[in-house]
Amino acid sequence: MNEQKLEIVKSKNLKPKPQSDQIPFGRTFTDHMFVMDYEVEKGWHDPRIVPYEPLTLDPAAMIFHYGQTVFEGLKAYRAEEDRILLFRPDMNFQRLNRSSERLSIPPIDEDQVMNHLTELISIEKDWVPSTEGTSLYIRPFIIATETSLAVAPSQSYKLMIILSPVGSYFTGGLRPVTINVEDQFTRAVKGGTGMAKTAGNYSSGYQAQAKAYKEGNADVLWLDGMEKKYIEEVGSMNIFFKINGEVVTPELNGSILKGITRMSIIELLKKWDIPVVERKISVEELYKAYEEGLVEEAFGTGTAAVISPVGELNWLGRKMIINDHQIGELSQKLYDTITGIQTGKVEDRHEWTLEVK
Amino acid sequence: MNEQKLEIVKSKNLKPKPQSDQIPFGRTFTDHMFVMDYEVEKGWHDPRIVPYEPLTLDPAAMIFHYGQTVFEGLKAYRAEEDRILLFRPDMNFQRLNRSSERLSIPPIDEDQVMNHLTELISIEKDWVPSTEGTSLYIRPFIIATETSLAVAPSQSYKLMIILSPVGSYFTGGLRPVTINVEDQFTRAVKGGTGMAKTAGNYSSGYQAQAKAYKEGNADVLWLDGMEKKYIEEVGSMNIFFKINGEVVTPELNGSILKGITRMSIIELLKKWDIPVVERKISVEELYKAYEEGLVEEAFGTGTAAVISPVGELNWLGRKMIINDHQIGELSQKLYDTITGIQTGKVEDRHEWTLEVK
Ligand SMILES: Cc1ncc(COP(=O)(O)O)c(C=O)c1O
Ligand SMILES: Cc1ncc(COP(=O)(O)O)c(C=O)c1O
Repeated sequence: MNEQKLEIVKSKNLKPKPQSDQIPFGRTFTDHMFVMDYEVEKGWHDPRIVPYEPLTLDPAAMIFHYGQTVFEGLKAYRAEEDRILLFRPDMNFQRLNRSSERLSIPPIDEDQVMNHLTELISIEKDWVPSTEGTSLYIRPFIIATETSLAVAPSQSYKLMIILSPVGSYFTGGLRPVTINVEDQFTRAVKGGTGMAKTAGNYSSGYQAQAKAYKEGNADVLWLDGMEKKYIEEVGSMNIFFKINGEVVTPELNGSILKGITRMSIIELLKKWDIPVVERKISVEELYKAYEEGLVEEAFGTGTAAVISPVGELNWLGRKMIINDHQIGELSQKLYDTITGIQTGKVEDRHEWTLEVK
Repeated sequence: MNEQKLEIVKSKNLKPKPQSDQIPFGRTFTDHMFVMDYEVEKGWHDPRIVPYEPLTLDPAAMIFHYGQTVFEGLKAYRAEEDRILLFRPDMNFQRLNRSSERLSIPPIDEDQVMNHLTELISIEKDWVPSTEGTSLYIRPFIIATETSLAVAPSQSYKLMIILSPVGSYFTGGLRPVTINVEDQFTRAVKGGTGMAKTAGNYSSGYQAQAKAYKEGNADVLWLDGMEKKYIEEVGSMNIFFKINGEVVTPELNGSILKGITRMSIIELLKKWDIPVVERKISVEELYKAYEEGLVEEAFGTGTAAVISPVGELNWLGRKMIINDHQIGELSQKLYDTITGIQTGKVEDRHEWTLEVK
């Protein structure tokens, strides 16, 4: 993978930018996108920034048939003095390559693509919204493009990065949510693709999602696929519990996504000398601790919401009300610290942010 | 779903047809394809046969991000007197709808689409090759087309049917293959999407496939995802064993695809008064029977090969040589009967074939 010159083709028709506090998630895209191609003989080549435009693919392109694809999700934040910050983007590109390995997709040069991304964002800097809680969502994704119905890794791929301004996840501050503990459907299992950010992991959850919504829940808490006993993660978030003064999160077991927010929270808690452990935790154990009055806080973590306090869990008809549906002290502190770092209001002692020049 | 008029737009540039005995699988497509769209307000609408052409989709089309897609695979065979036969196409469209349900995709009208398919094939009838073992492969598939990054079922879909002439799976007759019993990677687990024909189930197997190839195997035999103990199926085939006079195939447990060849074989065996059972079978039990000299035959079953005799299994370094690497008598009889019915040479007592007029 040799460093290649980035070609830039500017759009002639710039779109109007939406009101930054009224943006539905992931429906509005900026004027430009990043594209790079892979072919076996050439490797990854032709990095370019071009006007955002439709893709043209053969109906037999492999992406439509065998799901060989991976993606990432990160954000650019508008900080004080109009600086634009990315939060640990190196971790996203590392994870993209780990996901690619699982799906037999050739790796990208992480540094090269990260440079191209900052170039893209600097071209689109006016699209980074400024209202509190808003950001520019960044979606890198790779799709298999070979025209063939053979069940085999594609010989060609396309990496694209598209950008979408997004509104605040919580309008009016953090609000604890109710989550259903799914006891039938499975998201992932050891030996499967759970640790990869790949398309099939998401649509496979729609039935469980619909079931959860129907019963008034905002999301699904997945259990392990083998025994339906151990807690894994929420739809697009990792999960943490504060039990009797100790913070517990499921260990990375191959079926859980290694969230970058999760990782950052563990580092912060360690720095703050708050006990934190990554281990197996069964839903039975959690309910037992609850009955003993030991469950103090619960929260989901992910790029979308940063911290999403959990006010209530439902499992096989058993309701768990956490912290009286109120935001926990630790949840709030983590939220404030991370969003503070992301927007440059809190000093970044960890070198987590990367400024887009 | 009201019956809708099929629009037909003929291609002006017909492609040359390939030599029917030299066709690589799934790379050559016919002149026309079938397309139909879905929108929430309209349901499935605008069925049409149009020239085979590239698809244009927004980079944020959901198919590229969350894998909401299902597909089918069946074949049209050229029979005596140039008749063209389909083999149990109703079963494929039933299965397509079952897969769609799992992926939260709205169902199609099976009869309507089957009628449109026969129309398409009659337009493309010259593409159905005639050399023994060849056929016209039919690939119906549905993709989520809404432009949105929200993790939720799409509000719009496209159903397409593309056709590809395919050569003989076995050049020079049936040939037993060697298969690796995968002990690490998992294809599917109860509560997951294993029973659905959806894209993500296939690329998730590429790493195991590569491992198998590297060690000289032609394919992967999957074990259950929970205990890595029970036999499930081969890459794109169900699996049968003849043990001490009885035919055994893994029962449908939610993680195995309900193969139409599998179903047909069970029906034939019952008619022939050959004992056949669908049940859990552990790889340990199979190896024990082998050591006792009771494993008589093994074969994979699927639309691609019909019957693929298994001559050798490899599991954790333990080699099982079946029937001295020779084709079993029952394997051959099943192959001859089913391919005979498919090509009109054997009387179709089950009404399995549908003639395209
Ligand atoms: C399945 C899943 N788990 C967890 C996360 C949280 O990961 P991160 O903190 O990197 O956004 C995400 C979102 O990216 C996800 O899709
Ligand atoms: C995973 C899997 N199992 C089994 C089969 C065999 O099914 P059928 O006999 O309907 O072709 C297929 C192919 O369709 C498949 O993809």
